[in-house]
Amino acid sequence: MKTIRSQLLLAAALVGALAFAATVARAADPLPSWNDGKARQAITSFVEKVTKAGSPDFVPVAERIATFDNDGTLWAEQPMYFQVVFIFDRIKQLAPQHAEWTTKEPFASVLKGDVKAALAGGEHAIMEMAMATHAGMTTEEFEQIVTDWIATARHPVSKRPYTEMVYQPMLELLAYLRANGFKTFIVSGGGIEFMRPWAEKVYGIPPEQVVGSSIKTTFELRDGKPVLVRLPELNFYDDKDGKPVGINQHIGRRPIAAFGNSDGDLQMLQWTAAGPGLRFCLYVHHTDAAREWAYDRESNIGKLDKGLDEAAAKGWTVVSMKDDWKQIFPSGQAPVTAIDTLLEPDATMLQHAGADNAHLLNAFQNGFASDAAHRPHITRNQRLDGTAAPRN
Amino acid sequence: MKTIRSQLLLAAALVGALAFAATVARAADPLPSWNDGKARQAITSFVEKVTKAGSPDFVPVAERIATFDNDGTLWAEQPMYFQVVFIFDRIKQLAPQHAEWTTKEPFASVLKGDVKAALAGGEHAIMEMAMATHAGMTTEEFEQIVTDWIATARHPVSKRPYTEMVYQPMLELLAYLRANGFKTFIVSGGGIEFMRPWAEKVYGIPPEQVVGSSIKTTFELRDGKPVLVRLPELNFYDDKDGKPVGINQHIGRRPIAAFGNSDGDLQMLQWTAAGPGLRFCLYVHHTDAAREWAYDRESNIGKLDKGLDEAAAKGWTVVSMKDDWKQIFPSGQAPVTAIDTLLEPDATMLQHAGADNAHLLNAFQNGFASDAAHRPHITRNQRLDGTAAPRN
Repeated sequence: MKTIRSQLLLAAALVGALAFAATVARAADPLPSWNDGKARQAITSFVEKVTKAGSPDFVPVAERIATFDNDGTLWAEQPMYFQVVFIFDRIKQLAPQHAEWTTKEPFASVLKGDVKAALAGGEHAIMEMAMATHAGMTTEEFEQIVTDWIATARHPVSKRPYTEMVYQPMLELLAYLRANGFKTFIVSGGGIEFMRPWAEKVYGIPPEQVVGSSIKTTFELRDGKPVLVRLPELNFYDDKDGKPVGINQHIGRRPIAAFGNSDGDLQMLQWTAAGPGLRFCLYVHHTDAAREWAYDRESNIGKLDKGLDEAAAKGWTVVSMKDDWKQIFPSGQAPVTAIDTLLEPDATMLQHAGADNAHLLNAFQNGFASDAAHRPHITRNQRLDGTAAPRN
Repeated sequence: MKTIRSQLLLAAALVGALAFAATVARAADPLPSWNDGKARQAITSFVEKVTKAGSPDFVPVAERIATFDNDGTLWAEQPMYFQVVFIFDRIKQLAPQHAEWTTKEPFASVLKGDVKAALAGGEHAIMEMAMATHAGMTTEEFEQIVTDWIATARHPVSKRPYTEMVYQPMLELLAYLRANGFKTFIVSGGGIEFMRPWAEKVYGIPPEQVVGSSIKTTFELRDGKPVLVRLPELNFYDDKDGKPVGINQHIGRRPIAAFGNSDGDLQMLQWTAAGPGLRFCLYVHHTDAAREWAYDRESNIGKLDKGLDEAAAKGWTVVSMKDDWKQIFPSGQAPVTAIDTLLEPDATMLQHAGADNAHLLNAFQNGFASDAAHRPHITRNQRLDGTAAPRN
């Protein structure tokens, strides 16, 4: 066999998957938890335009960046930010080593179980508690602390794990965008190292695509072993004005789509909307007191006031959870499923597949393993040109 | 047709590409500019071990993170860091608006063409000049400035564009790692926004996978249009101790392979080596005075002293440019080519491909476009499980 370079050959190599895809495309609903309304139509219309080859709105795969706020956008944020619950739990756990906390606010109120008093100091108090509970250990130790907490803590109202307090329609939206070649990022005011340990499993978003607030770390050699030690000093606050800054620092490209739920996301949406070409901005509006919570302009958590006005003025999409979402939380099992575009193959395809399978088994007699995080799936993008990662 | 969910079906869908790959694998040399020696063998042995399913050293695709220093590792850094040349060119360009520079050091020396005097103030002087030339404009304006400069500036010795002063063997190594499911990152002491405008085209590394030094930016609305303005204030210095910090901040995973050329990369290599499982650390040693430059322990630029000792002590791979590289710089044309594993197909494959092509053409009668940055290619990872982006 001699080496050749041929586009024809490349096309041939990819064509097995493509031919299959061609027949089964436009099949199952990728957004089953979304009611058929303006919001859903705006989403699918945008995606169809930017992915349609030859369209004036077409966007190359590499530039299909979508950014998502986390608290109140991908998972719930009531009755308080889940990371604040984590802080409170950490304070209770660390209290035996901090006798002074029994009399020092806001720690004393946390230990007495008085949430209102503990939070009376506002952001300053939360920051003080965050530093006291998030610093002083190595990055690996902190990762373990978060991993242990997220596996065992339960939401005070639903009694479900926090990783089940995520929005099913948004999980479907993440998968739908990825299936269309988008790279999905979290851009959250929450702690970057608080989200990374579980974001990949829950949202399909890997650590390198999580942008968040952070504290400083310092490199040290401890007995010759290098560690990163977390310092009680703010490095970056990824909220409001900080979100476009964080996006620029981490991603280095302007998103073409951004998703938020509060005034804290407004600048991210403004920054996204201001780019050239077709852009998509969406606010999740918490309107469902029965199934979730209802709050907006007057809320201390997830306040949506200026954002609501600007969305109306600029024609951004506003999702009413009550009206637009059939289901709020996942019903159980794995929340992320990319198997959303498959249909039963016809006889010709099955015949081809059978022959190809025999070919494959002959070549790889011992088989080969997928990596641990792999879920079987085909994405639209993968089927169309094979250039983007399904889990990006 | 009814919706089904079936792993068998998924396997069938992917199998067209896989069967093809099975027959053509292990073909053309992916590292043609590397002499067959210890360094090359260490690289391929590492990659084979971590990608071999069932091997005790197997690493899932998501964790195959490789980080590369830029100056002196991916492109040359003599007779001075290329970004310093950019700074000097910017000073000359901006001089008409800064009458005070004719008498103020280090600017005055730059304007007189006295490089040695201009750099006499060391890092402090460079930082001062960087702030004066890299700040005060929006991020978009700066991107354009860099794009224009890199398109027109020429290396003082070779007279070639700086983007051709990249190392051909390292371009091959980047492509080889990506073809094996690695996500490749730059982790450089250089400016993050100085590298991003051209890194994707030259190295195949997208902006979101570039980590570097940065200055602060601030979000502003100018006539209602949001902009990020670059401030003359250091945000992060991504060198030495800063490299593991930057890796943690941006990537959130520890690399399994790291590549550098100087003591400024030592902590990155230490951090990489200290992770569990098989790790790979490599130093590029500048030993080729004839084809490039020869320097190490005594050099002001890219000093490699402690790193050389530690590499010897820990058994890290040290590449001698003189002995290990057949070719230093690209001979011309596009430096990154991923078409490195294709062989002529056999009759059965051609028959399958023909049938599939007909199928495909029938389904997509108008065809479909690849995105602008797409180069036709098949990567090993793509062929094995279809989960990772070829350009990651």
